[in-house]
Amino acid sequence: MAKFYGIGVGPGDPELLTVKATQRIKKLDVLYTPLAHHGGISVAEKIAQPYLPTTLEIKQRHFPMVKDLATKEKSWAAIAAEIVSDVQAGHDVGFLTLGDPSVYSTYSYILERVQDQIEVETIAGISSFSQIAASLSLPLMLDDELLTVVPATTDEATLKSALDLNDNLVIMKVATHWQMVYRLLADANLLEHAIVVANASMAQQAITPVSQLTAASKLPYFATMLVKKHQTLG
Amino acid sequence: MAKFYGIGVGPGDPELLTVKATQRIKKLDVLYTPLAHHGGISVAEKIAQPYLPTTLEIKQRHFPMVKDLATKEKSWAAIAAEIVSDVQAGHDVGFLTLGDPSVYSTYSYILERVQDQIEVETIAGISSFSQIAASLSLPLMLDDELLTVVPATTDEATLKSALDLNDNLVIMKVATHWQMVYRLLADANLLEHAIVVANASMAQQAITPVSQLTAASKLPYFATMLVKKHQTLG
Repeated sequence: MAKFYGIGVGPGDPELLTVKATQRIKKLDVLYTPLAHHGGISVAEKIAQPYLPTTLEIKQRHFPMVKDLATKEKSWAAIAAEIVSDVQAGHDVGFLTLGDPSVYSTYSYILERVQDQIEVETIAGISSFSQIAASLSLPLMLDDELLTVVPATTDEATLKSALDLNDNLVIMKVATHWQMVYRLLADANLLEHAIVVANASMAQQAITPVSQLTAASKLPYFATMLVKKHQTLG
Repeated sequence: MAKFYGIGVGPGDPELLTVKATQRIKKLDVLYTPLAHHGGISVAEKIAQPYLPTTLEIKQRHFPMVKDLATKEKSWAAIAAEIVSDVQAGHDVGFLTLGDPSVYSTYSYILERVQDQIEVETIAGISSFSQIAASLSLPLMLDDELLTVVPATTDEATLKSALDLNDNLVIMKVATHWQMVYRLLADANLLEHAIVVANASMAQQAITPVSQLTAASKLPYFATMLVKKHQTLG
């Protein structure tokens, strides 16, 4: 029976897909991918390229990256309707996500619009924060410790509370609110307990302890921070 | 150059290893594994069995599951010394962990005892909470939401604060402190926003909304809870 598959391709290295993801991708009939900014192929599709079957029909669609929710909902609904129609016609349809499809992914918005109408299956991927810990050979958490994952785009009070409560913190999208994040870390005396990994597992991967940065530093878009209260990180 | 590899085998299904993990396992000379309680092979080794080379030397070692830290440290130190000696003799040595090696793993204790002496590489795996979200086809978090992972073995005040602060919570090892967890959820009116997945991706996988459980329910050891404040889960 035809299905819609949400497939995590991991953080960048094509070998970081699961065996299950590669096998599923090889059997897809149709793949929906976002039209990349520069008009080329998306990051997720590039990562999965070694596994794409030659017979695959690729449908590039525009996912607007705007604040206006109505604009986004309109395109999600249109893409969801196309996917439902393809699956009902008997095609196995895939949607690739960078990292893990359950972690901050556009896939979730498509999923909630199709799952009452067609069969869906989500195939987990290695998240960026899992890969960051692996590339540093550092534990995310141990024993009775907590880990919180928080985007720097949240409000400052929430970020401060998360920093107060937790032993370990992953802060996503740090580049977008760098000065605020840096100030909160400095106030909490945690500058030496934080490290930034940009482009984890990709060719341009860069690891920088926060003690080597300043509030004026410029970070790449795919930069993620790990904060460990009980460990000095450079 | 010979190395020590910490390799995540994912939550249970042998197809949920990454391609990188399977390729690395196939080239290992020596594998250290915990002696299972019942004297058989460990869960992680069983998952990786399709990829183990026939020439692999398997060294089963006893990892004491006791409260006494000195006892545990003594055996970690002894196992770490053996691993260092094997790698220095030119062997590629592996250590398998269920799920992700960076998430609550004994691997971390071995790692910190060897990483100044030999080359190490950590290969990320699909964590149990990532697989739980995938098996439910539910997002762990969206937009500016937070996710906290907390073991039920933490103190009650910390668990309550985490529940207050976060949009999404993964509670590990819920079976061990079920009555406390159930009561906190009931007090916060969140019983209908929580779901338990036991043995994710394994043959005995079981999904149960918390609204169908009581404070007296008995849960399996590998049971993990997902709490989503903004979504009803059955």
